Amino acid sequence: MRIDNLQYANWSEKIFRQMREGGVDAVHVTIAYHENFRETVLNFEAWNRWFELYPDLIMKGLWASDVDRAKAEGKTAIFFGFQNPSPIEDDIGLVEIVHTLGARFMQLTYNNQSLLATGCYEDDDTGITRMGRQVIKEMNRVGLVVDMSHSADRSTIEAADLSQRPIAITHANPADWHPARRNKSDDVIRAVTSNGGMLGFSVYPHHLKGGTDCTLQDFCEMIARTADKFGTEHLGIGTDLCQDQPDSIVEWMRVGRWSKEIDYGEGSAAAPGFPDMPGWFQDNRHFDTIETGLRQTGMNDAEVAGIMGDNWHRFYAENFTPKGG
Amino acid sequence: MRIDNLQYANWSEKIFRQMREGGVDAVHVTIAYHENFRETVLNFEAWNRWFELYPDLIMKGLWASDVDRAKAEGKTAIFFGFQNPSPIEDDIGLVEIVHTLGARFMQLTYNNQSLLATGCYEDDDTGITRMGRQVIKEMNRVGLVVDMSHSADRSTIEAADLSQRPIAITHANPADWHPARRNKSDDVIRAVTSNGGMLGFSVYPHHLKGGTDCTLQDFCEMIARTADKFGTEHLGIGTDLCQDQPDSIVEWMRVGRWSKEIDYGEGSAAAPGFPDMPGWFQDNRHFDTIETGLRQTGMNDAEVAGIMGDNWHRFYAENFTPKGG
Repeated sequence: MRIDNLQYANWSEKIFRQMREGGVDAVHVTIAYHENFRETVLNFEAWNRWFELYPDLIMKGLWASDVDRAKAEGKTAIFFGFQNPSPIEDDIGLVEIVHTLGARFMQLTYNNQSLLATGCYEDDDTGITRMGRQVIKEMNRVGLVVDMSHSADRSTIEAADLSQRPIAITHANPADWHPARRNKSDDVIRAVTSNGGMLGFSVYPHHLKGGTDCTLQDFCEMIARTADKFGTEHLGIGTDLCQDQPDSIVEWMRVGRWSKEIDYGEGSAAAPGFPDMPGWFQDNRHFDTIETGLRQTGMNDAEVAGIMGDNWHRFYAENFTPKGG
Repeated sequence: MRIDNLQYANWSEKIFRQMREGGVDAVHVTIAYHENFRETVLNFEAWNRWFELYPDLIMKGLWASDVDRAKAEGKTAIFFGFQNPSPIEDDIGLVEIVHTLGARFMQLTYNNQSLLATGCYEDDDTGITRMGRQVIKEMNRVGLVVDMSHSADRSTIEAADLSQRPIAITHANPADWHPARRNKSDDVIRAVTSNGGMLGFSVYPHHLKGGTDCTLQDFCEMIARTADKFGTEHLGIGTDLCQDQPDSIVEWMRVGRWSKEIDYGEGSAAAPGFPDMPGWFQDNRHFDTIETGLRQTGMNDAEVAGIMGDNWHRFYAENFTPKGG
């Protein structure tokens, strides 16, 4: 089972074929950064069109069993997620609606304060809001996973504690390996994993020690040390692959419509665009490389298989269905 | 199996309990008259809330098998439909989206010209539009049934011929029994039923000979004569019950936002409100009465069972799933 739990590529037949070449059974794809509900529905529609056009390569993923079906049929199951709660606007009833349409992960914030929680770029973190508490309960009820990848620490720890089902950090690395704003402190990782939650390791250069030049060995050793600390079973991959995107997209991701000024996020005025991916992970065909790197750290077969996909598969099985359903 | 294929009541626990008392296994309920997409989603949300509040009385209906499950569990399965294509706006991608959310019937017009076809109150009927042809094909693909209850004759006949799956007139009666604007000519009924489509008999007084005073016997004899002409297997019930609605609702149904002037539709300035239902059909507890009336026409058990629900059940089984799905 091979699962990448975060990509936001400029989708094309080429990329879908690379998923197949790379033996990727499932990908969690982002379909909203700043989109409101109606705009998000347009993104669901665009994916419906891709499913209709490429039925031999991809299929809609709703449940863990769809990963098995995709694997059996030689396809990649596509699961949907939002990096921001903007698709539910101010309407808690939309939580069930977007779950019905196929959303399975929703970040409570994207860098900024949202109606639900505080993002990791704000100066002050006031934790989960009044609406945030209600929405977490509703997400738990319907089977929409709380993702705190771009949230601030207090908000993340509160979310992990308030949520009655495990939450996720779909794409980030430990801050004690590389202290980037988006990487996570041990306290945050512990709060998430000790409640059954998952951390997906990112290959996005701003999250890597040494950036684009980070070595495969260094990346895999970091994973092995994180496994020593928090347990292998809570770890997976969430590459944050943004393949074939023009730089205008990273600007949209950072600025959306919330500012008239440029915000460089993890970049800078000197390097405002997407950073180059490391040579050992250019696209979906390179998961074998990561798997080999993980084996070389001394982890056993089951541990490596867990990180490459089995752990996300188990997490999907436990967290996508309605409570009691 | 007892199915009412059209109601638009002022929903309440009282009505859900009456559905159970009346042994109604499934109801097709209208959730849009003039609502745009976002407004229709609010109506899906309101139903989600009812399903959460009354899990012992009602359940969401998506497939024919849900009628069986509802019957087995002593609940009523609620299927959704639109009396107008307004929920899909000008966006063919919304056809699959609303089907995913649970819509199973969509009228191509409600009295007026729409983007898709001509309504039964227009002076000229220009048939199915360019977009209408595309939308019928898409509805066929995903499993959303074309309903022509409020459409003009040429549009209806063209829809029956263009559609590659059977269509429906969910709630109307034969015009040769009672020549109301909303009742249907033999040519129209033949076009629909000869392609495997269904006619649901309405108990809405404006569709009845003699209106509110129409007798049960007269209503049931009309059904028996229609069965002689077009075949029992294409007939069912679609009462058009609008229980507990204030008269402001019938004004909304008729006028929506399309006119600043009052349009009385099937009513009149002297009688602008909802007409009184006949004494023999006041609410969901009265289906036994209709069943008894049908038996008294001389129809056999299988024919009566077909009209009371088995025919709609078969139609649901054949027409709600995606093509090839």
